[in-house]
Amino acid sequence: MKNILRNPPIGRLENIGFKTLEVRTEKELRASFLNQPLMPYIGAKLSAISPRKACIEVAYERSITQQHGLFHGGISGAIADNAAGFAAMTLMGKDKEPLTIEFKINFLNIADGERLIAEAEILQGGRSIFHGESKVYTIKNENRILTASALVTIKATSKVSETLF
Amino acid sequence: MKNILRNPPIGRLENIGFKTLEVRTEKELRASFLNQPLMPYIGAKLSAISPRKACIEVAYERSITQQHGLFHGGISGAIADNAAGFAAMTLMGKDKEPLTIEFKINFLNIADGERLIAEAEILQGGRSIFHGESKVYTIKNENRILTASALVTIKATSKVSETLF
Amino acid sequence: MKNILRNPPIGRLENIGFKTLEVRTEKELRASFLNQPLMPYIGAKLSAISPRKACIEVAYERSITQQHGLFHGGISGAIADNAAGFAAMTLMGKDKEPLTIEFKINFLNIADGERLIAEAEILQGGRSIFHGESKVYTIKNENRILTASALVTIKATSKVSETLF
Amino acid sequence: MKNILRNPPIGRLENIGFKTLEVRTEKELRASFLNQPLMPYIGAKLSAISPRKACIEVAYERSITQQHGLFHGGISGAIADNAAGFAAMTLMGKDKEPLTIEFKINFLNIADGERLIAEAEILQGGRSIFHGESKVYTIKNENRILTASALVTIKATSKVSETLF
Repeated sequence: MKNILRNPPIGRLENIGFKTLEVRTEKELRASFLNQPLMPYIGAKLSAISPRKACIEVAYERSITQQHGLFHGGISGAIADNAAGFAAMTLMGKDKEPLTIEFKINFLNIADGERLIAEAEILQGGRSIFHGESKVYTIKNENRILTASALVTIKATSKVSETLF
Repeated sequence: MKNILRNPPIGRLENIGFKTLEVRTEKELRASFLNQPLMPYIGAKLSAISPRKACIEVAYERSITQQHGLFHGGISGAIADNAAGFAAMTLMGKDKEPLTIEFKINFLNIADGERLIAEAEILQGGRSIFHGESKVYTIKNENRILTASALVTIKATSKVSETLF
Repeated sequence: MKNILRNPPIGRLENIGFKTLEVRTEKELRASFLNQPLMPYIGAKLSAISPRKACIEVAYERSITQQHGLFHGGISGAIADNAAGFAAMTLMGKDKEPLTIEFKINFLNIADGERLIAEAEILQGGRSIFHGESKVYTIKNENRILTASALVTIKATSKVSETLF
Repeated sequence: MKNILRNPPIGRLENIGFKTLEVRTEKELRASFLNQPLMPYIGAKLSAISPRKACIEVAYERSITQQHGLFHGGISGAIADNAAGFAAMTLMGKDKEPLTIEFKINFLNIADGERLIAEAEILQGGRSIFHGESKVYTIKNENRILTASALVTIKATSKVSETLF
């Protein structure tokens, strides 16, 4: 991620050059986020969204932990995936919605902290396929610990109800 | 998965030859499963467990859906991962616990149904690393639809509280 | 048949029921395979192809090994990916070509043998996205050892020269 | 320094602060790289190596292309994986060698250029498991295009000849 910022790649996305949300407003994106019952159910919030990027946060609750009181890996996976989906959605036409084709997540550290944050960025995208990268951090005593790293592939679909392909 | 059953590979795992749970009892495995607050919170049950295999089911509830009333992808990911972890746990010594190093999941079909089932099988395992494969099915009107396919890498750790590595 | 493909029925492609290659002939598929200079360069052969499935084999040569004389992991990855691409190509219209969007491979056993075989099967596919599963086996003294397992996402593109998206 | 590695501090390896190669010399690492017959066979060079990082380059040759004269995806995968393995090796004791457990790669752009470069960085690592991130760039007319992004999981093994686990 850092490398990319330091050595920006020449790619299609760079040409998009969005500085501000142009397709959907922040209000529309936030409404879509809350429209997923799972997200409020696990206490997830869309804490930031801007062109090509999105950030989701979850505060610690015992209900979303595993055997040892740590954030459950399923929560890290869910918000890493979802953050990438919303990052992609900022780049899609209003008639399109993001659908995750697949994602992969590596767990780098135990998720021991007060909050879990997924920061997603779209590395590349075009008409239909978007490649996102999400980093998940745990916040503990104001320290920020890199907890997981994910790659997410997203498709822009015309209708939610259509089959995935 | 099917291919493997039809053409069983010659590998270390085959030599393990467990026919019955030998290390932990089913009761112990089920207790460990329920010891994860997230699993009952999302309505997940460990519906079957046997040497090298585990099955987790989730009944439809609105709270675990996405924008269109389908099971949220985060739920498919969480149970695909967790089923593989428990499948691996059947092969680990009692002083060991499974920790997911990473997982990857492909979404093949929309998860539209009454129940979601993750069936996991360990393809290979040894002293410390276990490779699991999970297939997620949606049950709708008694049809069984392959919804997602996952690969999961699990590490046997001595203590939960140790860092991941 | 094409219409059915575009609206895949409940469940697996199994139900589509191609028994014979209908879109491209085996000769055309084999020509496309050989049209990739890398494949003959590493000694890879398309050993079998049928609707939804493809098999690639590589005979042992020192030039494709790693430090310990085993098949290099890069070779397993290349043929697992390529086999899935050709399996998908059997289901695409003649105006389409497969392009790998991403793949993931788990290495289950060391690749110590006389031959390496990647067997791919398409789990699900539609108009544009195909999900393939590849298993890589090593053949040693007539034993067949499961060596790697991969998931591959493929896109049907109209023109090779277009950017990926 | 080794102790620190075994108990990684909060956050990233950044904090460990290797500035110079301390375990193996650059000469030893380069010898190990060349000891893999596949790497010179595909024209790959270890162009840079430093603590936690490695860079592999491949110049364009027709023999490593696909149907359209682009670098074959199998080459991107092989060098993304290998670069991460060597990045991990800089952090391992001399009695250890890197073995890839699994890797995943997303193809972001067509690999159309004069050179292909994989830059790997270890995100996290400890006693046995290392998580690497590789970015693959294509160089064309002095432009640097982000072509693929990979996540790689590596294990430190004591003996090459032992089975993977």
